[in-house]
Amino acid sequence: MTNASLIIIGTELTRGIIQDKHSQLVSRELTNLGIHMKGSVVLPDDGSVEPVLESLVKEDGIIIVTGGLGPTQDDLTRTIIAETFGKKLVEDPESIEFLKRKLGERFGGSNIKQAYIPEGFSTIPNENGTAPGFYGGTDKVKVIALPGPPREMEPMFHSYVIPLIRKWLDIPEEERDEYSSFITGESRLEDLCEKYGPGLTWGTRFQDYRISLYVSGGKKEERDEAVRKIIGEVGEYRIIPGDFEAIDILRETLREKGLTISCAESCSGGVASDLLSEKPGSSEYFLGSVVSYSPSAKIGLLSVPEKVVEEKGTISEECAYYMAEGVRKATGSDVAFSITGVAGPDESEGKKVGTVAFGFSSKERGTCSVMIKLSTWGRLSIRRRASVAAFLLTDAYIKGMDIEKIAKEWLWI
Amino acid sequence: MTNASLIIIGTELTRGIIQDKHSQLVSRELTNLGIHMKGSVVLPDDGSVEPVLESLVKEDGIIIVTGGLGPTQDDLTRTIIAETFGKKLVEDPESIEFLKRKLGERFGGSNIKQAYIPEGFSTIPNENGTAPGFYGGTDKVKVIALPGPPREMEPMFHSYVIPLIRKWLDIPEEERDEYSSFITGESRLEDLCEKYGPGLTWGTRFQDYRISLYVSGGKKEERDEAVRKIIGEVGEYRIIPGDFEAIDILRETLREKGLTISCAESCSGGVASDLLSEKPGSSEYFLGSVVSYSPSAKIGLLSVPEKVVEEKGTISEECAYYMAEGVRKATGSDVAFSITGVAGPDESEGKKVGTVAFGFSSKERGTCSVMIKLSTWGRLSIRRRASVAAFLLTDAYIKGMDIEKIAKEWLWI
Repeated sequence: MTNASLIIIGTELTRGIIQDKHSQLVSRELTNLGIHMKGSVVLPDDGSVEPVLESLVKEDGIIIVTGGLGPTQDDLTRTIIAETFGKKLVEDPESIEFLKRKLGERFGGSNIKQAYIPEGFSTIPNENGTAPGFYGGTDKVKVIALPGPPREMEPMFHSYVIPLIRKWLDIPEEERDEYSSFITGESRLEDLCEKYGPGLTWGTRFQDYRISLYVSGGKKEERDEAVRKIIGEVGEYRIIPGDFEAIDILRETLREKGLTISCAESCSGGVASDLLSEKPGSSEYFLGSVVSYSPSAKIGLLSVPEKVVEEKGTISEECAYYMAEGVRKATGSDVAFSITGVAGPDESEGKKVGTVAFGFSSKERGTCSVMIKLSTWGRLSIRRRASVAAFLLTDAYIKGMDIEKIAKEWLWI
Repeated sequence: MTNASLIIIGTELTRGIIQDKHSQLVSRELTNLGIHMKGSVVLPDDGSVEPVLESLVKEDGIIIVTGGLGPTQDDLTRTIIAETFGKKLVEDPESIEFLKRKLGERFGGSNIKQAYIPEGFSTIPNENGTAPGFYGGTDKVKVIALPGPPREMEPMFHSYVIPLIRKWLDIPEEERDEYSSFITGESRLEDLCEKYGPGLTWGTRFQDYRISLYVSGGKKEERDEAVRKIIGEVGEYRIIPGDFEAIDILRETLREKGLTISCAESCSGGVASDLLSEKPGSSEYFLGSVVSYSPSAKIGLLSVPEKVVEEKGTISEECAYYMAEGVRKATGSDVAFSITGVAGPDESEGKKVGTVAFGFSSKERGTCSVMIKLSTWGRLSIRRRASVAAFLLTDAYIKGMDIEKIAKEWLWI
């Protein structure tokens, strides 16, 4: 296994003014290539990289250095790398041309320094800045230098560095399938991946409202089969090909069919409305919502019959039914959903934390409702997962699918 | 100047699974104490900290190590620190007692390891976990070990480590005043601090819904005078003593006075409702809200007169007035506010992005409304700032203050 180290240079980082963004990106992507990350180090712009680099070049591996490539006096990275490898700094003709085009009349003076690289090294183009990156070294140890600003470094890393390292290590460009997984915990999902695709390479990236899931290795049919089995266990609509948010899927369906939507929220407290209205242009499909946090708001604003609240409680399929229908009629939207449940930390109306009833109403299909027990803890997590579940089920409802069947499969996880 | 280094241990970090949170915190706080950060390094749980630590203890300074203190086999930090300083690991009686209390019947086995520290070292209590921290060393070099999880490490760092380092370096506990600043950009605030308190030390920490502002140096009267002048320029209620969210201030007032609240949102799209219902127990004061994204929802759900929408538009003081009154009456709450404006990216109804009308309604004071031009760009920023402005102005309204005067002062910034 190849080793790699990351050196991040920037006094703004060692003074705590800005937060490092490179360490996680580089560590994750190189780990995914099967490389062992020995560690990453953050150093000031004062030349203290020199002994660190000197000690690293004595060992095998790849050294990535970010920062310190700009034209100012503090930026010593190129000089120190050249010295460490016993090379002169030489003018790179292509970089000179690039800088002339980019800087025009401002080209000259300390700027020219950015077009110098250690002799025998190659440049990495920087489409979003002036300082190109460069790479080179020996058979045993190679160094890759990149500029510090994330908007320059990140595209260079993805477009040039990863393919370069693949070439060095002879890692073929692998086929990789992307999925989005919803309302499942990360460790649960990882267990299932291991169970149904033990010979495949799985990657997960946990985000606020979804987990991005990647699978590579094996044949396409094996990968598809493994994913099919996982879906068989977690239930329909929980894992979807592509890298999307649940709200993106619903938004796309609404736009395609030219439908408007509204919603009634209780335990999710505005999270679903926030997501529905987040993107520019959302007023084209989102008409509005009612956050009916109290029973009186459910009765007063949504016309939930008092009798339902009294006899069935607010965390019931009946209440969810009337909430969805109520908000659709009040706003005049084509479709509507409702969410009412227990976000915790305490039980409510004798129902456990995570119990959530959902209602769905459309002009075409009428109204229905289902009950789900979310297998998660934490108020924030329940508010978010309930919103995501509502988006997915509303999308399914619009598409004519059997909501009750889907929700029933979801019940047990 | 004293030197310090930070060693962060965690294979989850070197594999890029999680993002480091300690580096910026430690770097910022130690830099503020006048300490020179030599750098920080992230290493896996594989014992590779050993040579790094060995090389660091040959130099002067403070070494902070986080992670690797748990009870599992991977957690080697305490053993390696003990070896590096040539000490035995010994049982710490206080930590044993603490673990017995904390773990009850689960105490025993590998857990006990967490109560061992290098001989002659002292412990640092961990109120949010089981592994205590510890510190010790020589006159020249000292090491401080802390657990990795941010929710354990951060309070320990603030409450124990900073005072400890102050004592070591004989830095007197300086008088520092804390404020919370709302709906002002960070660079704007920094300019004002420099303008009115050039001889003082200012610190800002930008968060999603506020900026925490610290001032130290000079005499108390000078600091107070500088803050008074800044408030004079940005307007009342924008900078408040203490470190709070705007929603905390409003929540406290509602609880104290035993009042219930509701709101009507348009451009903020659910952000205010989300914050009002975020904390456990929020159903005690928050009755509900209407996100009236479309004109029809404003008319249908909030009883805004059609004539107002047609003649004045939805981004008007008149519409905000009826929205606030409408939601208060519909939910039966004691107080209510409304937000209707242009979150962008495009102008709406001929009004510029950032134009927001707010309504305030209470049983006691009736209804009023004001118009504000938020000096910010970006849809998310406008949605958040409009919500924060609504919380502050609602608090002022409940307290009997002159909303129109406050808002007028805010107009020009």
